[in-house]
Amino acid sequence: MALFGLGVFTLAAHAADLPELTPAFVANNMWVLIGAILVIFMNAGFAMVETGLCRSKNAVNILTKNLIVFGVAVSSYWLIGYSLMYGDAVVPGWVFLKGLFFDPTVTAEMIKDGALVPTVDFLFQAAFAGTSATIVSGMVAERIKFMPFVIFSAIKRGIIYPLGSAWIWNSGGWLKQIGFLDFAGSTAVHSMGAWGGLVGAIILGPRIGKFVDGRAVAIPGHNLSIATLGALILWICWYGFNGGSELAMNQNVPYICVTTTLSAAAGGIAAAMFSQITGGKPDLSMIINGILAGLVSITAGCNDIPLGASWIVGFIGGTLVVFSVGWIDKLRIDDPVGAWSVHGTNGIWGTLAVGLFARNHGLFYGHGLRQLGIQVVGVLAIAVEAILTGIILWNILAVIFDGIRVTDSEEIEGLDIGEHGMEAYPDFAPTAR
Amino acid sequence: MALFGLGVFTLAAHAADLPELTPAFVANNMWVLIGAILVIFMNAGFAMVETGLCRSKNAVNILTKNLIVFGVAVSSYWLIGYSLMYGDAVVPGWVFLKGLFFDPTVTAEMIKDGALVPTVDFLFQAAFAGTSATIVSGMVAERIKFMPFVIFSAIKRGIIYPLGSAWIWNSGGWLKQIGFLDFAGSTAVHSMGAWGGLVGAIILGPRIGKFVDGRAVAIPGHNLSIATLGALILWICWYGFNGGSELAMNQNVPYICVTTTLSAAAGGIAAAMFSQITGGKPDLSMIINGILAGLVSITAGCNDIPLGASWIVGFIGGTLVVFSVGWIDKLRIDDPVGAWSVHGTNGIWGTLAVGLFARNHGLFYGHGLRQLGIQVVGVLAIAVEAILTGIILWNILAVIFDGIRVTDSEEIEGLDIGEHGMEAYPDFAPTAR
Amino acid sequence: MALFGLGVFTLAAHAADLPELTPAFVANNMWVLIGAILVIFMNAGFAMVETGLCRSKNAVNILTKNLIVFGVAVSSYWLIGYSLMYGDAVVPGWVFLKGLFFDPTVTAEMIKDGALVPTVDFLFQAAFAGTSATIVSGMVAERIKFMPFVIFSAIKRGIIYPLGSAWIWNSGGWLKQIGFLDFAGSTAVHSMGAWGGLVGAIILGPRIGKFVDGRAVAIPGHNLSIATLGALILWICWYGFNGGSELAMNQNVPYICVTTTLSAAAGGIAAAMFSQITGGKPDLSMIINGILAGLVSITAGCNDIPLGASWIVGFIGGTLVVFSVGWIDKLRIDDPVGAWSVHGTNGIWGTLAVGLFARNHGLFYGHGLRQLGIQVVGVLAIAVEAILTGIILWNILAVIFDGIRVTDSEEIEGLDIGEHGMEAYPDFAPTAR
Repeated sequence: MALFGLGVFTLAAHAADLPELTPAFVANNMWVLIGAILVIFMNAGFAMVETGLCRSKNAVNILTKNLIVFGVAVSSYWLIGYSLMYGDAVVPGWVFLKGLFFDPTVTAEMIKDGALVPTVDFLFQAAFAGTSATIVSGMVAERIKFMPFVIFSAIKRGIIYPLGSAWIWNSGGWLKQIGFLDFAGSTAVHSMGAWGGLVGAIILGPRIGKFVDGRAVAIPGHNLSIATLGALILWICWYGFNGGSELAMNQNVPYICVTTTLSAAAGGIAAAMFSQITGGKPDLSMIINGILAGLVSITAGCNDIPLGASWIVGFIGGTLVVFSVGWIDKLRIDDPVGAWSVHGTNGIWGTLAVGLFARNHGLFYGHGLRQLGIQVVGVLAIAVEAILTGIILWNILAVIFDGIRVTDSEEIEGLDIGEHGMEAYPDFAPTAR
Repeated sequence: MALFGLGVFTLAAHAADLPELTPAFVANNMWVLIGAILVIFMNAGFAMVETGLCRSKNAVNILTKNLIVFGVAVSSYWLIGYSLMYGDAVVPGWVFLKGLFFDPTVTAEMIKDGALVPTVDFLFQAAFAGTSATIVSGMVAERIKFMPFVIFSAIKRGIIYPLGSAWIWNSGGWLKQIGFLDFAGSTAVHSMGAWGGLVGAIILGPRIGKFVDGRAVAIPGHNLSIATLGALILWICWYGFNGGSELAMNQNVPYICVTTTLSAAAGGIAAAMFSQITGGKPDLSMIINGILAGLVSITAGCNDIPLGASWIVGFIGGTLVVFSVGWIDKLRIDDPVGAWSVHGTNGIWGTLAVGLFARNHGLFYGHGLRQLGIQVVGVLAIAVEAILTGIILWNILAVIFDGIRVTDSEEIEGLDIGEHGMEAYPDFAPTAR
Repeated sequence: MALFGLGVFTLAAHAADLPELTPAFVANNMWVLIGAILVIFMNAGFAMVETGLCRSKNAVNILTKNLIVFGVAVSSYWLIGYSLMYGDAVVPGWVFLKGLFFDPTVTAEMIKDGALVPTVDFLFQAAFAGTSATIVSGMVAERIKFMPFVIFSAIKRGIIYPLGSAWIWNSGGWLKQIGFLDFAGSTAVHSMGAWGGLVGAIILGPRIGKFVDGRAVAIPGHNLSIATLGALILWICWYGFNGGSELAMNQNVPYICVTTTLSAAAGGIAAAMFSQITGGKPDLSMIINGILAGLVSITAGCNDIPLGASWIVGFIGGTLVVFSVGWIDKLRIDDPVGAWSVHGTNGIWGTLAVGLFARNHGLFYGHGLRQLGIQVVGVLAIAVEAILTGIILWNILAVIFDGIRVTDSEEIEGLDIGEHGMEAYPDFAPTAR
């Protein structure tokens, strides 16, 4: 029986007298566990991409934020997030809850049905929740105070993300009920995180020196080697992110991994092409973001978009990310690592792409505009949820902490000294930036 | 039939006429193989953490030690270590042996029972043996001669570690017989390695400049980016370390992965909190060590400690690591990367925690002090074994190599030039440290 | 039904009315999928090794080449490479084809037989194709123009590699028919790539400053930390490369992983020993290449070489790599990261080793010289294919692009500025090299 609160300190690892494990039970749980491990490793990928694409004087700050936020995210998701996301209806369609923590008990029925045990399902979902936090991190980088960011992440992971995602993935969620499709989270994870980060970036304002005489100034990252490593880590971990979302091991899983691969490849190629066309030379940071854009774009429809269409979806994503960076600059919004263009622009594109290219639902396969319309509804619903909660939360934090932005002098000196009293590379004297 | 010695050059990959593979056989072997791969990848995690937390002038040396030691460890464990650890009783309860090398033959019985094949079991155990070596590496870093370290590691991996671990994990081992519990090795791997390293650190003495006027001087690491990456690599690989120790794929494995996750998260949070309280700002290297402390703390009881208690165990671990660093400094022992505080202090804490928090054995679940007492016995037994063998071995090496510490001038110049004739970052002129 | 061309835009993820999945089907597909993920991650390993062993002024270029080439490789392999490699005979024994793209449809028969679904098989093979490209990258590093390299890789991946590999791995391939054995690709992947790179390196000529007064000058890499990380990434990913090549999950897979481990360990030890003997001190870059040499050496025979012999094969490989670097220098060929010595010399050695040490085929196990002779035929056949196509292709590209080498001034300034208009480490002022 589930005994929340006290139960979390007493429940045994597993119930006694379980029947012999069925092969399907073992295989499904093993694959989703592997998927969870891969998604958790995404934290390393995001940490390396963000840190590498920012300046060295803020490296410790970005690394610390990524490290601590995952621990906080997992803890808050365990406390209440998982319950809010997959619990029973409190306000049918809109709000769900099932006490605090979760009951890890394994039952004979789970084994018979080849179902996922609660611990595997929790770990996989918690890994997703952690991923969503890092997206915000990139958008507020190099100028946000440490504690407001940590608290924002805890609440985003523990409440905001599960609330909105429940509409999409809880069997009673209203978006799921109207047929909204987001297989692994282009909207639920990526644009959800991106909107919250965008609001933060706007409230914070641009970094000193980002916009000069009305023009956007490029502020290059300090380490393209770890940024590239981060991109490749994210690529392979996305096989867990998308492939694990099947929540079982079957013939769909490798199909999903192939659509994911083709989309990522095409995204990188497109970004290389368009960064060369617009900038004169192939830009590595653009190619990194192109690959990520391809991955985000296919996330919503990776299970049902044909292979050729997947390549196209990714190519469009990689194209969009290049131009989106320009649009964000024109709006005078400072997005240090291009996180909006990867997760926001392409979170939206990936979600809409389902309405166009999904074999069983898309416009191009004779299913009309219905799905596309439903996709738009979902995109808007999550946008509203994330923007509103973002505005409220960032402003509350600004009041509590007397502003969420560091002082000008700290920003110029670098957050590493100001927030952490240490440097990332004490052995190498950096040029002043 | 097992034909050791010559057999290792002749035995075929597998016996003929094997029956059809059973699903349990396939799943168990696949999961433990994946676990082995993850544990082997821990070498990358430890290499990045150690190198990143030491100075750049010693980077090549630390990297080289980590690389070569794994190769040597695997070879010596294959030669004799595996046999010493899981062999037949020579001195019942205390010493085991089964020839040299091991017999990789797969039998029909293994398939029928869903048992692990010898090659998988060997690889998993060899991976563990390799891990134990890197713990010593961190404690003697920046001042030890290369060859004494390599030889110490070979003997530690091939003899000392298997000898003591057999008491814990061999079915005939005396510690196992009295009911000592160490599921994945808080004592067998972590404090075992830490004691050996501590003895080395004491014999070596502190680095030049570490203690000045009776006060400990912080010597910051040179690359916090790779150190953070290393911490995240270790986090996900620990799912193989703890989860693979179930030696099968079943419903316990994801449970173990969740206790591991919660403990790591709590450890990081605790270290962030206490480093802020004691030092004024959240220290990234402390948070890294806090996460590792959480991981080490749960290693002994990850299969039987309830979820809420796991979070607490990790929180205590992350707290301990912060204060332990201070205690080690007060004792005038130089532990460059905090390896004792992570693996020693928390290896001990994690082992004792079983006596407190294990659902089926712990004090807090109505089982009295018995288990705690047994845990203390195990902690002391391994401490004595590791300390005594460490003292003997380091001193023998000091005689053979005319001291195990490099000269002062080599230490100041950096071991990379002295031991390897090369630099890690020739393109960047470092500030003198 | 397979409908190529148009089919790739319409085929559904899976056929309807599939029977219940058999355990063998699920396990085999899961393992090979995991293998594919590991092999794809090799791109990160190669990127870090290559970049770390070259100068910082070319880092962006090397990283970009590695990133974009994988995307291009996967796309061209999907377009035609997979079909050329595993298609039906067009010229029996020599040329194969099966339309463009591939049919992802899963059939009931595949499930019943426990066979790999097309998507998993494609992904695994595509990952291999991507690996082969990065080998060339290392050999032409620091002086090749970007576009010729990208196009060479696309054609190498899409046509040259599948053409030659089909002789080895297509059931109708003439080398397979005569009994040539290359389990996971010492010849098919490693020396195939190395020959193409060697031709490029010769046509390009050495880097400025590599050969002075008739002597080879060492040009050290700029970041040994990421190079070491790359080596460890490659080590664990090789378990997917070799272990996944069983194309199923069974008792052979962990056996393969153990031979792989022992060979890698021995290779590192040998390289450490011989670099110390020849150079006076253990050289980290040599140890890295020694480990890789061990991995390449066992790739051809990892399934059938006994454990002790595997250690020997790797030891010989690690020895060869040290001396091969010297031979290449004497020939006045500039191989910046030692890629020929790792993949070429040891690709050949690993292939021949099957004729000596394979339990069921080797000279040392009483099977005479027959297999060794067949191995020599295969080595020569692929050498001829790769060299001829390499000469033709590089020269065509030289004509189209008015030379494949950058200008002297660009080479001196660094390809990052010339080809990409950006730097890898803008925060750190490098010493001039």
